[in-house]
Amino acid sequence: MHQTRDMRLVTIDDVRAAAARIRGNVVRTPLLPAAWGGDAERPLWVKPESLQPIGAFKVRGAFNAIAAATAGPAAPTDVVAYSSGNHAQAVAYAAAAYGLRAHIVMPEETPEVKVAATRDHGARVVLCGAGQRESVAAQIVAETGGTLIPPFDHRDVIAGQGTIGLEIAEDLPSVRTVLVPVSGGGLASGTGVAIRALCPRAEVFGVEPELAADTAEGLRRGHRADWSVADRNRTIADGLRSQPSELTFAHLQQVLDGIITVSEDEIRSAVREFAYRAHLVSEPSGAVALAALRRGGTPPGETVVILSGGNIEPVMLRQILAE
Amino acid sequence: MHQTRDMRLVTIDDVRAAAARIRGNVVRTPLLPAAWGGDAERPLWVKPESLQPIGAFKVRGAFNAIAAATAGPAAPTDVVAYSSGNHAQAVAYAAAAYGLRAHIVMPEETPEVKVAATRDHGARVVLCGAGQRESVAAQIVAETGGTLIPPFDHRDVIAGQGTIGLEIAEDLPSVRTVLVPVSGGGLASGTGVAIRALCPRAEVFGVEPELAADTAEGLRRGHRADWSVADRNRTIADGLRSQPSELTFAHLQQVLDGIITVSEDEIRSAVREFAYRAHLVSEPSGAVALAALRRGGTPPGETVVILSGGNIEPVMLRQILAE
Repeated sequence: MHQTRDMRLVTIDDVRAAAARIRGNVVRTPLLPAAWGGDAERPLWVKPESLQPIGAFKVRGAFNAIAAATAGPAAPTDVVAYSSGNHAQAVAYAAAAYGLRAHIVMPEETPEVKVAATRDHGARVVLCGAGQRESVAAQIVAETGGTLIPPFDHRDVIAGQGTIGLEIAEDLPSVRTVLVPVSGGGLASGTGVAIRALCPRAEVFGVEPELAADTAEGLRRGHRADWSVADRNRTIADGLRSQPSELTFAHLQQVLDGIITVSEDEIRSAVREFAYRAHLVSEPSGAVALAALRRGGTPPGETVVILSGGNIEPVMLRQILAE
Repeated sequence: MHQTRDMRLVTIDDVRAAAARIRGNVVRTPLLPAAWGGDAERPLWVKPESLQPIGAFKVRGAFNAIAAATAGPAAPTDVVAYSSGNHAQAVAYAAAAYGLRAHIVMPEETPEVKVAATRDHGARVVLCGAGQRESVAAQIVAETGGTLIPPFDHRDVIAGQGTIGLEIAEDLPSVRTVLVPVSGGGLASGTGVAIRALCPRAEVFGVEPELAADTAEGLRRGHRADWSVADRNRTIADGLRSQPSELTFAHLQQVLDGIITVSEDEIRSAVREFAYRAHLVSEPSGAVALAALRRGGTPPGETVVILSGGNIEPVMLRQILAE
C-alpha cells in the first residue's frame, strides 16, 4: 500500500501564491484597532472576515482552489462542493466569477434561506439524504468531469485561508498572539503556517466551543479524536461542528501553540460585544476568538482575534442581542 | 468691513495632503462589494466608516486638523471642541494620539454613556447649559491657548473627511454615483471635492432625513435655509441635525448634483438591511445613503453608499432590528 494523498504541509510560499491568485476577488480586510476591547497589556485588533463577499473567510480558499484548478492544463468547466454552510456560498460565488458551473450538494434539512442564497449565486443545488453527500458529490464529479472543492481537506483551500495570516503579518509584524476559530481546521492551519513563518515570536491559539472540542482533545492525545455528530451539533456555533482531516490535523499539530475552549454563554456574549462595541455582526462561530480572549490567560502583547464570519439568522441575532 | 475668514474652497491638493497626514492613524477602510444590495444596472459598494476608531468618519477630520495645527510654528498643547456626538470622541481620540490635552464642551443633557466614552479617551469634559457651548469653548481657548477643532466649519476638517472620496476614487475609478449623508456638510463637501476632481463622470448626491432637510431647501433656494432646532431634532438620525455653515454650504453648491431626502421608516429599514445583509451595525445617520438608494431614481452605474458611523445605543439597535 502506498500513500497516494499529497500530505506535504502547506508552506508560506503556497500562501504567497494564493495571495497573488485571489487578489481582486476577495476583500483585503483591514486590521481594525479595537481600543474598546484591549488594554495596555493586550492591545487588540480585529480581522473582520465577515466583510468578505458571502460574509465569511471561505471565499479565500474557494477562489484559490478554483484559480489553481483552472490554471492547470485540464481546466474544468464545472466545480462541485458539499456543504450546508458558508463554503457552499463561497464556491458558488467564486465559480460564478470564473464563469464555471457550480454543483452544490446540500443535506435535505438545510434551511431554505441557505439553499436560496446558494442558488442566488447561480449554482445548481442538489439536495441529498443524511450521510450521502460525499457519494452524491463523487457521482456529480464523475458525470461532469468537474473539480471537487472540499471545505478544508485540500492544500489549495488551506493556503487560501492562510492569506489571512499573511495580511495580519503585513499589517502588524509585532503581533504576539493570534486567536483563530477551529472546526475542520483549514483556517487555523493556513493562518498558523503564515504567522509561524513571518512572525516567529507570535503564538497562535485555536479556539473551539466546549461542546465541539474534538481538536482540543485530539491535540492533547496526539491523534485525532472523534466526537459524534450529535455531540458536536449541541453548540450554537454551527460553523464549528466539523472535525479536522488527517491533513489539517497534521498542520494544527505543527502550527498551534494550544487550544482554548469557550462556553456557549461566552460565545453569545462575544456576539454582543462585537455588535455593540465594534459595530460588527458576527455569527456565533465567528465570535469564539473574542470569547477566548475574554476568558483570560492569553499571553501579553499585541493580540489579534479573527472574526471568521457574519452569517447569522436575523431571529438568532435579535435573540442574542436581547440577552 | 473686510473678509477675515478664509473662504477659499478646499482643493484636491488639500485632500491629498490630508491623506498623507492621517495615514497610520485612521483605518484605510475597504470598499466592500455588496452583491446582496446591488443589481446589474446599479452594482453596489459600501464604504464602511463605522469601522474607524470611535466608530465614525469623524476621526479623519479631527486627525487632519490636529496634525495641521501641530505642524505649525506655534504647536498647541491643548485642543478644544464642542460636540455631544461622534466629533467629541474623535477629537478626544486624536488628541490622545498626539499627546495633547483635549477639552470637550458638551451640553448638560448629553447621555452619560457619551460623556464616559469621551472621558475614556483621556479628555476633560466640560458640561454647559443650552446655547452656551460656543462661548464656553471660546473661554477655554482663551485660558489654555488651545486650538479649536470645529465639527465641520474648517478647511482642514473638510479636507480630512475628503480622504473618503480619495479612497473611493482609488478603489473604484469607474464609480458613477456616490451617496453621502449631509448634516453640517463636512463629509459631503470633502467627499464631493475629491470625487469631482478624480471621477468627473460621477455624480454626488447628498442625503438628508425629510425631517432635517434644511440643505435640500437651501440648495433649491440658492442660499442657506434655517430650520429650528426643534424641527431638526425630530429625526431619529441624531448625527444629521446640524446645518451647513457658510463655508460648507459654498462647497455643497459646487460639488453636489442634488439632494435626496428619506423618511424615518426608510432610515430604519436601511439599518436593518446593513445588519442582516452586510453584517454591519449602522447608526440611523449612517444608513441614510442606503435608504436613498432604495428610494429609487439614482442614475445607473457603479454606486457607492457611505456608511458614516455605527454608534447606536443597544436598546435602539434591538428595537429597530425587531421591527
